[in-house]
Amino acid sequence: MLIDRNPLPDGLDERLRRQLAFVAEVDQLKTVLRASPLAAAERRENDAEHSWHLALMVLLLAEYADEPIDVGHTMRLVIVHDLVEIYAGDSPVFDPAAVVGQREREEAAADRLFTLLPDDQAADLRALWDEFEAGRTPEARFGKAMDRLEPMLLNWLTGGGTWHMPGATESTVRAREAGVVAGSTSLGAATSRLVEEGVRRGWIRPDAPGKADGQARGHHGYTQPHQHTR
Amino acid sequence: MLIDRNPLPDGLDERLRRQLAFVAEVDQLKTVLRASPLAAAERRENDAEHSWHLALMVLLLAEYADEPIDVGHTMRLVIVHDLVEIYAGDSPVFDPAAVVGQREREEAAADRLFTLLPDDQAADLRALWDEFEAGRTPEARFGKAMDRLEPMLLNWLTGGGTWHMPGATESTVRAREAGVVAGSTSLGAATSRLVEEGVRRGWIRPDAPGKADGQARGHHGYTQPHQHTR
Repeated sequence: MLIDRNPLPDGLDERLRRQLAFVAEVDQLKTVLRASPLAAAERRENDAEHSWHLALMVLLLAEYADEPIDVGHTMRLVIVHDLVEIYAGDSPVFDPAAVVGQREREEAAADRLFTLLPDDQAADLRALWDEFEAGRTPEARFGKAMDRLEPMLLNWLTGGGTWHMPGATESTVRAREAGVVAGSTSLGAATSRLVEEGVRRGWIRPDAPGKADGQARGHHGYTQPHQHTR
Repeated sequence: MLIDRNPLPDGLDERLRRQLAFVAEVDQLKTVLRASPLAAAERRENDAEHSWHLALMVLLLAEYADEPIDVGHTMRLVIVHDLVEIYAGDSPVFDPAAVVGQREREEAAADRLFTLLPDDQAADLRALWDEFEAGRTPEARFGKAMDRLEPMLLNWLTGGGTWHMPGATESTVRAREAGVVAGSTSLGAATSRLVEEGVRRGWIRPDAPGKADGQARGHHGYTQPHQHTR
């Protein structure tokens, strides 16, 4: 654990000691890189700043949820949703190799991470993570919708972003769009416009191989964090 | 605005267009660097990941608030509290030159940033920011306590961090500790232990110049993001 580098001084009670050790441990979320490029800088996004962005989006876009949601609870879900990646790593959705065994890795990571906390809070955070993953409450559906929409917007702003990855085609991108629709019909419709226009501009590869040939974008690799089109 | 790089496609209504442009604009919070070092990597922390860390701390440490707090509302406050730094920049607390004019810069930034949103949400976010800044509600006091405690913990984990800055001495560090105490007596006591032990280890310079001389730490500069002591 990170806290072992400089163990906390004596004089703290055991419960607080465990909580602060956990707070220290999760500093590592700031070092888990996603595939998504930032719009504001030439680098990839990390999980901590991504989670912050989702929380702000929940606050600003809650009015578009198809069902009434508890905004505070939805913020809790998105703040916690990626924590397991501290141990399990990020699994880029458009990288078929990366998602193999993802569920098992994340379950093992959850067992290891959340149990660092006092039992009651370990159960609370595990429940939040399970709820988000299952996507069966209005709050989880809306949180997931934000988790899908945010990288779509970053891709839009950077002229393609992860849409340029080999595993991304119109149908796999549309599958992500479905995650937005599941939480919000109107934000889903907006996302659909981004995808439609992304395909038209050649930022998203069509599915039929014949159609992809000879188009403006000749590359199928994803080597740069992003390519601005100005 | 960032969104001008790739304006949103047509077919979105004006309210949503403004909200998504704002969501895009605040991507810049990920590029505002604080003085604080990360514990998990050899670099400084940015405002977005810092804000995420505070939100998680609110969730985990709310039981220590001296007055009952609404956790969801406190999370809103910390998610929003640094947004103005997108335009105003970070003002490191231990850098006397940086804090000159800070209030004016941040007020101007708030006027410019929040008004990008539809009027009702501009007023909402402005009210959240004002509430946090004023520190007169239990939620604002606890949010501020997290904002003080988090860099203390990062300093602890990195063997000093910003405590090595020229403007940091025991009394200026104790002034930050007071911000933790104001929201939570028990977390304030824990912070006091970190500071006490930090002084003992030579990570925090005592106030009396005579006492600082000849001690283990001979430097008074702050050049590295952090120095690990193992």
